[in-house]
Amino acid sequence: MPQLQRLVIAPSQFSSQFSSQFSGSKIALTPQQQHYLGRVLRLQAGDRFIAMDGQDWWLAVLTPDPTQANVLEPIAAPTELPVVVNLVIAMPKSGMEDIVRQTTELGVSQIIPVISQRTVLKPSPHKLDRWQRIAQEASEQSERQIIPEIIAPHTWTEVLANWNATCSPCYLCEARGDYPHLLQCLMESRAILSNPGESFEFSHSASNASSLPSTLTVAIGPEGGWTEAEVNAAIEVGYQPVSLGRQILRSVTAPIVAMSLIASTPFLKLGDRLGEEG
Amino acid sequence: MPQLQRLVIAPSQFSSQFSSQFSGSKIALTPQQQHYLGRVLRLQAGDRFIAMDGQDWWLAVLTPDPTQANVLEPIAAPTELPVVVNLVIAMPKSGMEDIVRQTTELGVSQIIPVISQRTVLKPSPHKLDRWQRIAQEASEQSERQIIPEIIAPHTWTEVLANWNATCSPCYLCEARGDYPHLLQCLMESRAILSNPGESFEFSHSASNASSLPSTLTVAIGPEGGWTEAEVNAAIEVGYQPVSLGRQILRSVTAPIVAMSLIASTPFLKLGDRLGEEG
Repeated sequence: MPQLQRLVIAPSQFSSQFSSQFSGSKIALTPQQQHYLGRVLRLQAGDRFIAMDGQDWWLAVLTPDPTQANVLEPIAAPTELPVVVNLVIAMPKSGMEDIVRQTTELGVSQIIPVISQRTVLKPSPHKLDRWQRIAQEASEQSERQIIPEIIAPHTWTEVLANWNATCSPCYLCEARGDYPHLLQCLMESRAILSNPGESFEFSHSASNASSLPSTLTVAIGPEGGWTEAEVNAAIEVGYQPVSLGRQILRSVTAPIVAMSLIASTPFLKLGDRLGEEG
Repeated sequence: MPQLQRLVIAPSQFSSQFSSQFSGSKIALTPQQQHYLGRVLRLQAGDRFIAMDGQDWWLAVLTPDPTQANVLEPIAAPTELPVVVNLVIAMPKSGMEDIVRQTTELGVSQIIPVISQRTVLKPSPHKLDRWQRIAQEASEQSERQIIPEIIAPHTWTEVLANWNATCSPCYLCEARGDYPHLLQCLMESRAILSNPGESFEFSHSASNASSLPSTLTVAIGPEGGWTEAEVNAAIEVGYQPVSLGRQILRSVTAPIVAMSLIASTPFLKLGDRLGEEG
C-alpha cells in the first residue's frame, strides 16, 4: 500500500454507526479536515486517504463535495500506529541493526540517523542499505502496512533545520536534568486519550496544537549523551526535553523504551482508567 | 547491598519534612506496615529496611517501639524501581542474553525462565551461569543497587504452583484475544499514581489489594505464543491476560516493551496529567 495520508474520523462523522455497514458509508468532514485535506495536502476529488476511527482503518475517497468523503472498504487488521513517528537517533557504536529491527516492530515511520558531536560511527552507504533491508524484513515479519524509511545520516544541525519541531511535538530524550517523563508528556496530550476517535491533537506547549492527525518526533542521544549545546539548540527550535526514567539505559535500549511508550499510549482509555466515564 | 526489604513511606510519616534533615528523622509506621514488617517479614528491633518516599531512598532501622523506625542515612541516586518485578519468560530460541541484559537495565528483580509447551531451547547449566553474569554486568553498567537473580528454568506448571499469583498482580502477555493493554492495567492501579508516597497498592481485581509494597509478575510467551491450556491454567491461579498492543512483536522484543511500561508507570503524576490537582 502506498503511504496514504491517515485521518482520524470520529465515529459520529460516519453516516452509518455499525462496522458491518461501513463500506458505502459517508464521512462528514469537519471544516478543519477539509482545510487539511484540500489546502495542506492538496488532495482532490477522487484522491484516497485512510480514515481511522480509533479502532479500525477504512480506505476512503474524497468526493466532489468538499464536505464529504466516501468509505470504500475496511483495511484489515491494522498494525500501524495512529500517529506517524519519526525516530531521530544518534548512531551508537554498535546495535543500530537491533534498533532498526525493534523500533520497526513497534511501529516507527521514519528513522533519521544523526551524527552528533559524540557519535563515533561513520556508516558507509552499504550500511544504510542494510538497515533499510532490516526495516523491510521486520515490517514483513510484523505484518506492517508501511515499511519505515531509513534516511541518510544527517548532522544534528541539519536535523534541527529540516525536521521542523514547530509543526509537531518533538521530544528530546536526555538522561541528565530534571525533565518530565516521556510517558507523562504523552499522557498530557489528552485528546489522544479522551477523544481517540476525534483527533490526535498533542496539546504540548511546544507544538502547534491542531486537531489534524499528527506526527511525533523523538530524538535519542549517543553513548555519551547530547552535549549541552546540542540540547540547547534543540530546545530553541521547539524540542521538549524528556526523561525515560531513573534507570541508566544503554543507547541501544533507550529507543526501544521510547517507542514502547509511544506505541502504548494510543491504546489507553482515559475514562476507563479513572472510572469517571464509560 | 543485600536485598533489604523496601517499604513505601508517605512523606507525612517522617518526623522531618526536609530532605537535608532526614538523617536522624523518625518514621511513624502505620498499623499495616507494623504488621508487614513484624508479622510477615519477621523483622525485629535493629533490623534494617529501605524506606522509599516516592522520590528518594533511605536506610532505616526498626526500633524497640514497633510503631517507630529511625532513618539512618540517605541511599544515593536510587536507580531501583519502587516495585519488585518478576519476569517470567518462556525462553526464545535465541536472544535470551539480550532479554537478560535489557530487562536488567530496566529494573527487573528476578527472571524466571520457563519451559512452555512451545519452548524449543533447553539451556545447559552453563547457560544459566552466563545469564547470571550478564545480569551482573548489566547491573553494574546501569549502577543498580540490586543484581537480578536468574532462577533455574521451570515448567509452566511449576511456575504457576510456586509463584503464587494470588498475593500480587500477575500479568500474562498474550497477543491473541481481546485483552486490556498492560499499560491500561498498570494505570488502573491508581494508588501508584495518586499517592506515590503512600502505597504501591495494585487495585487489580485478581490481586489481594493491600497498601504494602508490592511485587508484580509479568509473563511473556514463546515464539508460537502460549497454548490455550497454558493461558487457562494461568487465569485459574489469578493471572490477568493483557495485550502489548496490536503490533506483532518478536518474543525478544516483548519483554523489553513490558518492562518499559512497568518501569515508566511509577513516574507518572496523575494530578499533573489531568490538570485537576497540583
